[in-house]
Amino acid sequence: MEEVFYLNSIWIILGAFLVIFMQAGFILLETGSTRMKNAGHIAGKTVFSFGIVALTFWAVGYGFIFGENSNFFVGLSDFFFSGEEAENSDYSSTAFFLFQLAFAGISLAVASGGFAERAKLSVYLIFAVLFSIFVYPVIAHWIWGDGWLAEHGKQDFAGSTVVHLTGAMAALAATILLKPRIGKYNANGTSNNLSGHNQVYTALGVFILFVGWFGFNAGSTLVVDDAFFAFVAINTTLAAASGSIGALLISWFVLGKSDVPTILNGTLAGLVAITASCAFVETWAAVLIGFIAGITVFYSARFFDKYKIDDPIYALSVHGVAGVWGTLSTGFFATPKLATVGQAGLFYGGGFTQLGVQAMGVVVSAAYAFVVSYILLLIIKMVLKGLRVSEEEEVIGLDLTEHGSYGYPEALGEKNSKSAI
Amino acid sequence: MEEVFYLNSIWIILGAFLVIFMQAGFILLETGSTRMKNAGHIAGKTVFSFGIVALTFWAVGYGFIFGENSNFFVGLSDFFFSGEEAENSDYSSTAFFLFQLAFAGISLAVASGGFAERAKLSVYLIFAVLFSIFVYPVIAHWIWGDGWLAEHGKQDFAGSTVVHLTGAMAALAATILLKPRIGKYNANGTSNNLSGHNQVYTALGVFILFVGWFGFNAGSTLVVDDAFFAFVAINTTLAAASGSIGALLISWFVLGKSDVPTILNGTLAGLVAITASCAFVETWAAVLIGFIAGITVFYSARFFDKYKIDDPIYALSVHGVAGVWGTLSTGFFATPKLATVGQAGLFYGGGFTQLGVQAMGVVVSAAYAFVVSYILLLIIKMVLKGLRVSEEEEVIGLDLTEHGSYGYPEALGEKNSKSAI
Amino acid sequence: MEEVFYLNSIWIILGAFLVIFMQAGFILLETGSTRMKNAGHIAGKTVFSFGIVALTFWAVGYGFIFGENSNFFVGLSDFFFSGEEAENSDYSSTAFFLFQLAFAGISLAVASGGFAERAKLSVYLIFAVLFSIFVYPVIAHWIWGDGWLAEHGKQDFAGSTVVHLTGAMAALAATILLKPRIGKYNANGTSNNLSGHNQVYTALGVFILFVGWFGFNAGSTLVVDDAFFAFVAINTTLAAASGSIGALLISWFVLGKSDVPTILNGTLAGLVAITASCAFVETWAAVLIGFIAGITVFYSARFFDKYKIDDPIYALSVHGVAGVWGTLSTGFFATPKLATVGQAGLFYGGGFTQLGVQAMGVVVSAAYAFVVSYILLLIIKMVLKGLRVSEEEEVIGLDLTEHGSYGYPEALGEKNSKSAI
Repeated sequence: MEEVFYLNSIWIILGAFLVIFMQAGFILLETGSTRMKNAGHIAGKTVFSFGIVALTFWAVGYGFIFGENSNFFVGLSDFFFSGEEAENSDYSSTAFFLFQLAFAGISLAVASGGFAERAKLSVYLIFAVLFSIFVYPVIAHWIWGDGWLAEHGKQDFAGSTVVHLTGAMAALAATILLKPRIGKYNANGTSNNLSGHNQVYTALGVFILFVGWFGFNAGSTLVVDDAFFAFVAINTTLAAASGSIGALLISWFVLGKSDVPTILNGTLAGLVAITASCAFVETWAAVLIGFIAGITVFYSARFFDKYKIDDPIYALSVHGVAGVWGTLSTGFFATPKLATVGQAGLFYGGGFTQLGVQAMGVVVSAAYAFVVSYILLLIIKMVLKGLRVSEEEEVIGLDLTEHGSYGYPEALGEKNSKSAI
Repeated sequence: MEEVFYLNSIWIILGAFLVIFMQAGFILLETGSTRMKNAGHIAGKTVFSFGIVALTFWAVGYGFIFGENSNFFVGLSDFFFSGEEAENSDYSSTAFFLFQLAFAGISLAVASGGFAERAKLSVYLIFAVLFSIFVYPVIAHWIWGDGWLAEHGKQDFAGSTVVHLTGAMAALAATILLKPRIGKYNANGTSNNLSGHNQVYTALGVFILFVGWFGFNAGSTLVVDDAFFAFVAINTTLAAASGSIGALLISWFVLGKSDVPTILNGTLAGLVAITASCAFVETWAAVLIGFIAGITVFYSARFFDKYKIDDPIYALSVHGVAGVWGTLSTGFFATPKLATVGQAGLFYGGGFTQLGVQAMGVVVSAAYAFVVSYILLLIIKMVLKGLRVSEEEEVIGLDLTEHGSYGYPEALGEKNSKSAI
Repeated sequence: MEEVFYLNSIWIILGAFLVIFMQAGFILLETGSTRMKNAGHIAGKTVFSFGIVALTFWAVGYGFIFGENSNFFVGLSDFFFSGEEAENSDYSSTAFFLFQLAFAGISLAVASGGFAERAKLSVYLIFAVLFSIFVYPVIAHWIWGDGWLAEHGKQDFAGSTVVHLTGAMAALAATILLKPRIGKYNANGTSNNLSGHNQVYTALGVFILFVGWFGFNAGSTLVVDDAFFAFVAINTTLAAASGSIGALLISWFVLGKSDVPTILNGTLAGLVAITASCAFVETWAAVLIGFIAGITVFYSARFFDKYKIDDPIYALSVHGVAGVWGTLSTGFFATPKLATVGQAGLFYGGGFTQLGVQAMGVVVSAAYAFVVSYILLLIIKMVLKGLRVSEEEEVIGLDLTEHGSYGYPEALGEKNSKSAI
């Protein structure tokens, strides 16, 4: 029916706008979690990263994920998307294109966390292009583009695996190859605090991401049937809420003080975890999934720090570990009534079947994203003679060395800072 | 009709997203209006406060307000909301749930202003839970949940009383019990300026709140009939605009300089005032209501300062005084045609009847919110042995003493600042 | 049909919300591009500027643009808009009013860039009122209000000319009359860098503007027919993306470093350029239009700097030059199928006809906006005895001298900073 086609299309494009708005959240989250001398670099990087994603997605990404004539890895049509509408669709395929483009942008934003404060700009730029062509579209094709994981009934409503885990695995590859930032770990193995410079930014970023997440999750219903989007939205809200409270409580109990970055990460972890499961579980389960995510992220950040994996923006904990937990959670909590993809979870009489499918999806996707990212970075390392800026450049900060001007020229000294215009 | 059900539901959930986004505005407004040493605390607090509201509202708040089997104070069903849709509704009850949850979040955000820069984190945490259970839902039930004030035809379209005045009265109770911040008032009775640290934050916060307010007011039509939401939206815009201009002019005339915080407060006061009346008055009246609110907020802030009521975020002036004015304004300006609730105001031949109902609603709601909040805080004071951090902690700032790390570690000195992760 | 009326109205009001949200982007863009001592002034100014636009648009602007009984310059009805709905419209005329009000707000925000860091507050205030009455509405009437340029088939889908070029020409008049900021140019003709103080703000501002631009462009379809808004949205996205990449590459190639402000301006230039053409060109052309805009803005900013036209917020390059390019671009790239206004462009067999119409529209609109703004400012200069604050005041900063308190009192010294409340 004509009006419902319009309604669905408006709903999807609204979702696209909200997910694109999440990039504003990433600007704040990433600059707030790092130091002043790299703030202009990281803020500017977020802007052109979205540019890279948009152009590559238009040229090849969309065709790889959703194109016809697909092989095992990707589809092969619809390159350089013209905006022509598909026939007999429930919604505008052009609106759907923009929605999917926005998702690809989030995955790269997560991945970019692994490069923070030490990677050469040229390295990141080339990786961003390759990731957007060879990494994200393949996993998205497998799970959302009628690929082989879709055929197994993999549940991932809005992308705990496709978007978040994929990005986090690329970040892990980058983090391992780049090694920790100067001054992060001492010779005796202890760790120093290289605190992010602005918790107002990070808190604001978290709330913008939260609001954008409604586009991510509720937008993924694609159609407005039964106003089911509202159910997805309240599960999303409840998981974010309990993630924040879980993190607040665990940091208070363990440390004697409630740590602000932990609270913020807990909120995001709740959101990442519910991303896979928001459409498949009851409201009480959403509360529980978020709460566990909030507690997990606290221990997970400590775990990575202990093993000297330097992850300034917590991409591995927030998007990786919580992404895994969220993907597995449907294997426990999916109800028979809500499991429109796959089947009910362990706690609802579904046995271990769905849990097995979820685990397989996690392992295969994580392995692909990590291995391919790792190889791509090794090749870039050879070609560009190193992934990392020099020690001196890192100490000065990437604002000045990679871009020529500080993000905060008045606060950091204007002497050497000179923007082009 | 099916499509109209979807349209209404989309409209409501869009309103919910916008009102939730207002929390981002509160992060900026509250941190910008306070000092650097408390910025991480206040930003983080806003995030977990929303978590508290979401969980309590899901568990009991929604049931208290809208549940069946109600007594004088609250309804008694629908606890631990399952997301099941009501039958024969014009819109998704799940979307409505999220919309109402968002409103509850705003009321607590207003209340939290009264705790700024001196309350113990534990005190605020417990109060937030109790306020969200025992204060807000009762007043919301009375006015919006078919309670006794609704039966009197109380006009409060989107919550000048329910949301803003309620929050402001809790803030007043907190402000009185907590006493002024160190250094605010001198022995001779004069007052010092403890300026907020960032007017860019506050201005940005105001604009985010302004945009979010469209969800608040225009979203409160709930249904899309006659596209009446657009009329509500322009009244909202006009009142905000004239609030800003009113405040600009009065501060310029009185002080010789146009004061930026006054302009920002004037804008918000216009918005708060029009919240009750946006659906009931003509456009010229919206301009006037906003203008008067903008002027009032200037004098009101000076009034509270004179009487040594220390209100860093102007919760009492912006949300309290302007909330009262807005609620009363319909008693003057409501037109016979637009007064779908209650009746026309004094200037439209309605006499003093509606004005009386409005005044009674203000007095009763304000009294309930103030008295219950006051008693709750007295109990908390006994149990936790004081409401306020020590003098030394207050001077150091709550970032460090309550959370262990500065919000701005590079600007304030990293020596003692150590986030957990 | 009733539902489609609602759908269109929701679409338009959503567009209005997004365009109003762009003011938040301007707060960040303008404060981030200027110095700390003027940050409170510029942030506050953006808030009350919108207030001025809203009130003047309500009182006379809307009537001038869309009123009946029009003369050559303006229409003459619908003053003090009452919110009454037109009959037999495809959408709510009240929603359309708010949408158009939001556009007027953007044009003034662009114009205000020319006053940055040196104009008296009183001068700006009076100019803002006059611009909103005598400049913007006339050009908007000519092109969008069935005026004489509309009759020639001028293509300007969402306002490259009407909104952006008009604002930029007013900024140019202000920039010329105000003269460069103290310290910008040396006696020997070389130029100094008066860097903006916060690139995180500017990057965040750019992304908020980007998201808001969906309301600007996609919202301008007004009706949801064929879900054409989605096509407009992807063209908008692609042009912004290629603008950012074009600017990144050109600054890297020319300077050896990719300049962050250039990347941000390139993104905006892509958006400004596609504003006229988003509905008339194919996706590949959108990529090309944005890319050229991104490169042009780099050279254009250098050009103005060379000729000592001091333009701190790049209003002339981003909104002026890119606005011209965008308006002309449809004369090249408009396709026969998409050119629902005017005709196909040069590259699609349309010859030079449409290009000529576009060029004429640019010249006439730019000339009107510049000349009238110039004259208005000359009159203001006479009446107020100068446009500019004193040298001493400019050095101290407008926060303190025009408003009485710093935007950043803790960072800049609280001694003399005293807000009114």
